[in-house]
Amino acid sequence: MSPSIHTAGALAERFGLVLHGDADAAVTGAAPLATARPGQLSFLGNPRYADLLATTQASIVIVDPDHVQGVRGTALVARDPHVAFAKVSELFESRFERPPGIHPTAVIHAGAQVAASASIGPHVCIGEGSRVGERSIIGPGCVIGEHCSVGDDCELVARVTLVLRVRLGRNVRIHPGAVLGAQGFGMAMEHGRWLNVPQLGGVVVGDDCEIGANTTIDRGALEDTVLEEDVRLDNQIQIGHNVHVGAHTAMAAQVGIAGSARIGRYCMLAGKVGVSGHLEICDKVTVLAMSMVAGPITAPGTYASSLPITDVRTWRRNAARFRQLDALARRIPAEKKDS
Amino acid sequence: MSPSIHTAGALAERFGLVLHGDADAAVTGAAPLATARPGQLSFLGNPRYADLLATTQASIVIVDPDHVQGVRGTALVARDPHVAFAKVSELFESRFERPPGIHPTAVIHAGAQVAASASIGPHVCIGEGSRVGERSIIGPGCVIGEHCSVGDDCELVARVTLVLRVRLGRNVRIHPGAVLGAQGFGMAMEHGRWLNVPQLGGVVVGDDCEIGANTTIDRGALEDTVLEEDVRLDNQIQIGHNVHVGAHTAMAAQVGIAGSARIGRYCMLAGKVGVSGHLEICDKVTVLAMSMVAGPITAPGTYASSLPITDVRTWRRNAARFRQLDALARRIPAEKKDS
Amino acid sequence: MSPSIHTAGALAERFGLVLHGDADAAVTGAAPLATARPGQLSFLGNPRYADLLATTQASIVIVDPDHVQGVRGTALVARDPHVAFAKVSELFESRFERPPGIHPTAVIHAGAQVAASASIGPHVCIGEGSRVGERSIIGPGCVIGEHCSVGDDCELVARVTLVLRVRLGRNVRIHPGAVLGAQGFGMAMEHGRWLNVPQLGGVVVGDDCEIGANTTIDRGALEDTVLEEDVRLDNQIQIGHNVHVGAHTAMAAQVGIAGSARIGRYCMLAGKVGVSGHLEICDKVTVLAMSMVAGPITAPGTYASSLPITDVRTWRRNAARFRQLDALARRIPAEKKDS
Repeated sequence: MSPSIHTAGALAERFGLVLHGDADAAVTGAAPLATARPGQLSFLGNPRYADLLATTQASIVIVDPDHVQGVRGTALVARDPHVAFAKVSELFESRFERPPGIHPTAVIHAGAQVAASASIGPHVCIGEGSRVGERSIIGPGCVIGEHCSVGDDCELVARVTLVLRVRLGRNVRIHPGAVLGAQGFGMAMEHGRWLNVPQLGGVVVGDDCEIGANTTIDRGALEDTVLEEDVRLDNQIQIGHNVHVGAHTAMAAQVGIAGSARIGRYCMLAGKVGVSGHLEICDKVTVLAMSMVAGPITAPGTYASSLPITDVRTWRRNAARFRQLDALARRIPAEKKDS
Repeated sequence: MSPSIHTAGALAERFGLVLHGDADAAVTGAAPLATARPGQLSFLGNPRYADLLATTQASIVIVDPDHVQGVRGTALVARDPHVAFAKVSELFESRFERPPGIHPTAVIHAGAQVAASASIGPHVCIGEGSRVGERSIIGPGCVIGEHCSVGDDCELVARVTLVLRVRLGRNVRIHPGAVLGAQGFGMAMEHGRWLNVPQLGGVVVGDDCEIGANTTIDRGALEDTVLEEDVRLDNQIQIGHNVHVGAHTAMAAQVGIAGSARIGRYCMLAGKVGVSGHLEICDKVTVLAMSMVAGPITAPGTYASSLPITDVRTWRRNAARFRQLDALARRIPAEKKDS
Repeated sequence: MSPSIHTAGALAERFGLVLHGDADAAVTGAAPLATARPGQLSFLGNPRYADLLATTQASIVIVDPDHVQGVRGTALVARDPHVAFAKVSELFESRFERPPGIHPTAVIHAGAQVAASASIGPHVCIGEGSRVGERSIIGPGCVIGEHCSVGDDCELVARVTLVLRVRLGRNVRIHPGAVLGAQGFGMAMEHGRWLNVPQLGGVVVGDDCEIGANTTIDRGALEDTVLEEDVRLDNQIQIGHNVHVGAHTAMAAQVGIAGSARIGRYCMLAGKVGVSGHLEICDKVTVLAMSMVAGPITAPGTYASSLPITDVRTWRRNAARFRQLDALARRIPAEKKDS
């Protein structure tokens, strides 16, 4: 597989970028400014690294208008170099054939519908009443249970499970090991033993969502668990039953959202954040890593609750004091003194 | 698939509920009080929502005796409406055929035993010395390794892995992506390199346990990792080697239990709780979300350690002060003052 | 399967241990000191349990030189009894045949290379441009995507996914459900919608690494995500794109490392630790369970940030005070007083 060659002139025209320098400068791949070699494309995403423009070996650098003067070689100028780079560098991603049709090892229920343009990979299983839309790719080892629907242009990369009543919009991508539509954690106790509460809802995933590896999204109890459009979930996230996630919200790895929580649009939850059930977070809320959201958030902004590490001796002393914090606070004089 | 129709009279008789209203009121599904339409069943689980009884469109509502007067239409009266609803709404869950027998794509070792009434789905693999009991369902893509035992009436929904020496009781249900019996994290260091300590134990899972999607339970080092009966594990839980979990204990998603911890009966661990290894938690302990149990708990009750979020500026100031907490505390006057 | 019998004399010779007692003492398995029966091997790993030497029923006990006098029966003496036990007890682990060759249900791309001595299990899928080295075992249901490389003597236990550009060294073991090489969480926002940034790097895993069940390691954005040799990852760990983990570092379950973090050699991260992106942790750092590393660590040592649990009433009061901590601190007199 020989890589394709792209010239600065061709890239400028194709992606609507302004060229400064040699239209014939050519690249076959991409790399960070610090390590790029001749023949590679790079970009300046963060002005903190502008010094690297003077030393980078990259043949072409994407920069914003403020930094074009710093580029020694050929520059392509974009208002947002990160966005421009994202689009251009698609050219360098490997592409593999996913031929339309159903692999002979796949097992498709007679009551399932698969579009002729869809690609169903090896060892896939599709159950009764489920359907797969046009051009969608169901990778090796995926299991689609009953009454599920995969829209057009979706990709289930490999070993994804849709259990029951999962409905994906268009252009949804799900990474390996993710499980959507499993029985939620709904139980009642009777005579000292747990009784399952039937989970009669489903999971609805809007257009353009992306769901990370080993992430789990339970189906709803009576109504659906919902992801609106363009929601981005990283790996190992847990979404409980009847959660509702607003459009364009992104969550980093290992976030957990308990049942019936409602997360707004354009929210950003950093890694390992926990959100309690039955509460609402409004639009445009950012929560820093490992924080616990135990009550509603009603104003946009940034929130946090985790503690910074210290060396273990200091930590032991401080943690012991935390256990006494209220008692200590009561001993503090009411009047403010110079401290 | 046309849904079946159930009348209030028939439901009252079948489930031993007291009927108030129209015995011919009929339902074909279930919904929350607020959104139910005519033809749907609902219930009042939490008295906080009693006002909805006046406005709900549900044709039948399950309530406790104290709220029957508030129901405008037809009521079914139960001591615990949530439990009654759990049982009745089973009628509305979809059922799919899992025919007895072994799917032709399954690969069963000659030294494995599968009951004739069991259903072994597509792309299943069962290894040497393993057995599957009567009426158990092994869904698509499950892998059962060696020397495992699945009791009667179990269900491995799909893509479940039992690695080695995993023994399930009766009526155990395991959701997709769960891994039981993997090599635990047992290591010793020699000459600056890690050496694996063989994990010679297994995993024993009692009757009526339920294990969530992508949960992992390692096999024991020398003795077994044990879940007693009716333990309920949500998704993405980690149970380390040689952990012992008492009967009827429930854990919410993303809980982690380190090796050799012993958890009592009827405990409730909320989401993301962490429990250190080699400690004991007594019966009837509840731990709130995202708390860290680093020492034994010897008295029943509710425990917590997580901090509440604040806006990021307040958080930064408070977190900085936490690093000085012991030093600050030493400056607090010994005598209590009015605060 | 009858277990093999090993005598103290033979074990002493084979593993270079010093024998005290009866060279004909024989064992067929292993157990902890407290529960061992005659015919079993045990060891004293922690001097705290030395009292058990007087009562254990084990036929052979591995001890260090300081404790050999306490053993009533037969002892094998080792400088590090845990290490010696790890080696000896390998004899008791079950072994199962993994015959060389490709199972007829496996689907191997014409452009993939599999060594003749490798064992490819049922329902495996191997994609274009990938290769599997000598004697490596690819267990049931594994999916190896494109341009991946599995070195010699590796084991992918079952249902492991290598997505794209994953290169494993020699003697790497990966447990079920792990996903390596998935698209990292790289995005840019344009006109209010997320845009994927192509992830052009891969994952490089050094020799002798072990990767736990359901752990996820994303491929790099422009360069590779790297695990140096002998890294040990427990279950449900998340390693973000472009993370670099130094040799011999071990992480317990549910740790999460955000993108581009750099972890040193011989580090130990306990369960549920979180590490922010774009920071560096030096060699020989230990971080206690559930701590959050939000800044660089430049000195070896032990660090922590989690809080101890208390009963819920005390916790509520203390947590409320934490929200006021900075304000409280300002009211503390500057001069230290006796407390």
